[in-house]
Amino acid sequence: MTTHDAGAARPPRTSVEQHRADVAALLAPLVARRPVERLPLAHALDRVLGADVSAPVAVPAFRNSQMDGFAVRTADVVPGRALPVVGEIAAGSTAAPLAPGTAVRIMTGAPVPDGADAVVPVEETSVGRFGADVTEVVLGAVPAPGAFVREAGSDVRAGDVVLPAGTRLAATRLAALAACGIAHVEVVVPLRVSVVSTGAELVAPGERLGPGQVYDANGTALAAAVRAAGGTVAFEGRSGDDPRVLAGVLADAAALGDLVLTSGGVSQGAYEVVKDVLGPDADAASLPFALRDTSVEFRTVAMQPGGPQGLGRFRGTPILTFPGNPVSAQVSFVVFVRELVAAAAGRVADGARPRRRLDHAVTSPPGRRQMLRGALSVGGGVRVVGGTGSHLVAAMARADVLIDVPADVEALDEGAEVEVWEL
Amino acid sequence: MTTHDAGAARPPRTSVEQHRADVAALLAPLVARRPVERLPLAHALDRVLGADVSAPVAVPAFRNSQMDGFAVRTADVVPGRALPVVGEIAAGSTAAPLAPGTAVRIMTGAPVPDGADAVVPVEETSVGRFGADVTEVVLGAVPAPGAFVREAGSDVRAGDVVLPAGTRLAATRLAALAACGIAHVEVVVPLRVSVVSTGAELVAPGERLGPGQVYDANGTALAAAVRAAGGTVAFEGRSGDDPRVLAGVLADAAALGDLVLTSGGVSQGAYEVVKDVLGPDADAASLPFALRDTSVEFRTVAMQPGGPQGLGRFRGTPILTFPGNPVSAQVSFVVFVRELVAAAAGRVADGARPRRRLDHAVTSPPGRRQMLRGALSVGGGVRVVGGTGSHLVAAMARADVLIDVPADVEALDEGAEVEVWEL
Repeated sequence: MTTHDAGAARPPRTSVEQHRADVAALLAPLVARRPVERLPLAHALDRVLGADVSAPVAVPAFRNSQMDGFAVRTADVVPGRALPVVGEIAAGSTAAPLAPGTAVRIMTGAPVPDGADAVVPVEETSVGRFGADVTEVVLGAVPAPGAFVREAGSDVRAGDVVLPAGTRLAATRLAALAACGIAHVEVVVPLRVSVVSTGAELVAPGERLGPGQVYDANGTALAAAVRAAGGTVAFEGRSGDDPRVLAGVLADAAALGDLVLTSGGVSQGAYEVVKDVLGPDADAASLPFALRDTSVEFRTVAMQPGGPQGLGRFRGTPILTFPGNPVSAQVSFVVFVRELVAAAAGRVADGARPRRRLDHAVTSPPGRRQMLRGALSVGGGVRVVGGTGSHLVAAMARADVLIDVPADVEALDEGAEVEVWEL
Repeated sequence: MTTHDAGAARPPRTSVEQHRADVAALLAPLVARRPVERLPLAHALDRVLGADVSAPVAVPAFRNSQMDGFAVRTADVVPGRALPVVGEIAAGSTAAPLAPGTAVRIMTGAPVPDGADAVVPVEETSVGRFGADVTEVVLGAVPAPGAFVREAGSDVRAGDVVLPAGTRLAATRLAALAACGIAHVEVVVPLRVSVVSTGAELVAPGERLGPGQVYDANGTALAAAVRAAGGTVAFEGRSGDDPRVLAGVLADAAALGDLVLTSGGVSQGAYEVVKDVLGPDADAASLPFALRDTSVEFRTVAMQPGGPQGLGRFRGTPILTFPGNPVSAQVSFVVFVRELVAAAAGRVADGARPRRRLDHAVTSPPGRRQMLRGALSVGGGVRVVGGTGSHLVAAMARADVLIDVPADVEALDEGAEVEVWEL
């Protein structure tokens, strides 16, 4: 073939929204039905309740004093006339009924005795402050019935739902559970994601780099992005260009994870190992085992970076294949997967993307939605960092957002409003 | 004493801002000078760099191809005339110099051979896509010198600072470090905080509640709040009302933590165990050991909830004593400590508090700054939840913010702007 038929060779491009919808459909059962696990409160911070939590006891569990002072019967109080003080009730103790015509010293949190219907703070009495023995107390006014008395169940009644399913367990919410005596909670198990980097050129960070070799940034990037989105990393693997090796790595990844993410091996080159295992021209007979329930569709998404994408199943487990360029792989995760991982973890997101004004004009090639790396300005605007080169991991690291330039837009003026994806 | 001298007994109140400043001064050396620790990248998500990180190698480490295509000498290209294809360079391999008048197949990421000064993507050539053997290629136009060639160091030069000290390690930043071959980072060690709950009435969540007993919510609440703010929990303990026991618990707390937080035992009652160990009337001879370098000042802060506060040192370690009421303790942490724990972890906060409009009128007792529990409305306003009772942990759990009503304000109209503290 020596004719110049580049146009004919190009497959039709899938829109970003279509690919997002297809990925969401693939993962929908995983997101909708999450298992729950039981954790002690100290391990549940920021996790999401998998079920309503009801209070096993009332809070407060008993009628108690809101202040250090004297418990009295309001009917017995005459301003200026002394009441005999017949004893003391400390927090953590029990209380006998209050005899008519008497008062009792009472500490904050201590049970209010039967008969008493108000507490008067010590500093509002003739006693002023607790010190030596107190035998009598004079009140300046008749307290209101119920004053400084916390009724049992006034905060939470026994059986009340303290927190509903779906609640994210902030510190204040863990405190409420602890106050009800709850020590363990059922929380949603986050999506377990396996991450596999492919490419003969890849070397693990920290190892020695040989000629032609490149450090694997995608393993670190995708694993961290999964964790940041609320998922857990089930498996991390790496494979060169041998389809037999990759098939074995993917088998582990699929067995351990709810979802497999691969990077690399999906371009137009001669050695595209992911396509060699999962693509239409894969040589099934060369693999170490049969690929039951395995089917991946490769497509080109009208997005830059991150055009070459694949989605399907490997041995029954959903799999998404990202391009190998570190910026492309990271953008792919943000645009196609991040919200689903967060949703599976029970985190609610409204899906709205904020709008910012461009600090400078931007041009964009037509036909592909650009996800430019952007940094926020002090004034609230956004500017492109590092240009459009998809290999610029340092620029990606300086970016706060992705600037979303629609496929049909070729130029934007300074001050134009753009949607951004927060990083 | 039978006269009614309540007014005289009340100590002067410290302003919230003064107490914040005093706590900040106490913790300033801890916040300003944090130790660093060395962690693998996979454990460093959201941590903060303790030192600049420089690139040990350039990224890319060698001149390489940005596309699957053909490497050529632009001076040799004549549109429409075939160039012989003399071989192939895969990613991860090495490349011999390109002979004049020839082209070589090259894969994305593969080294561009000496002599070649451009790459032409395969789909823009007569070949269209890689498949069977290719012996010659026809180009439609002369490529620009440098086209689709990534120069060594074009992303990061060897020795460049990739990320400066103080950078929070988002996934994109870990990716950049991995791309440079960096496997470990020096990150700031967060503040190690010990949390001690006091009170004879306290029982651990999950245990059986006896008469007069209360579940300890503060241990859970403060430990979770410390973690959410970026600190670590060094020690969690609980003590009843025996000063000897509390002194022993505090000794462990102070030995293991950079900071000790206590709750309870600081009010006006007869059994205030924290004051019994640390207050001016403490009986040092009754304690199991001498309290060297121990001094705590108790004061009443003009804040509600959370008035009774103490700050100082226990055996040299900074200590803050919060009131025992769970809402009071949580508000105390938010208002006095949270920003300092975050700052010690290297997290930058501007300290600004957003303003919201009240959905309804609010009245407030004079002389004390109110920190009301507030929930945000869909319309962007804020409303009080659960009233002002400081024991309402369930209301605190429903709150999104604390509504800050200044001490000199007695009433606010619907629609009035208020500062809020985000929870």
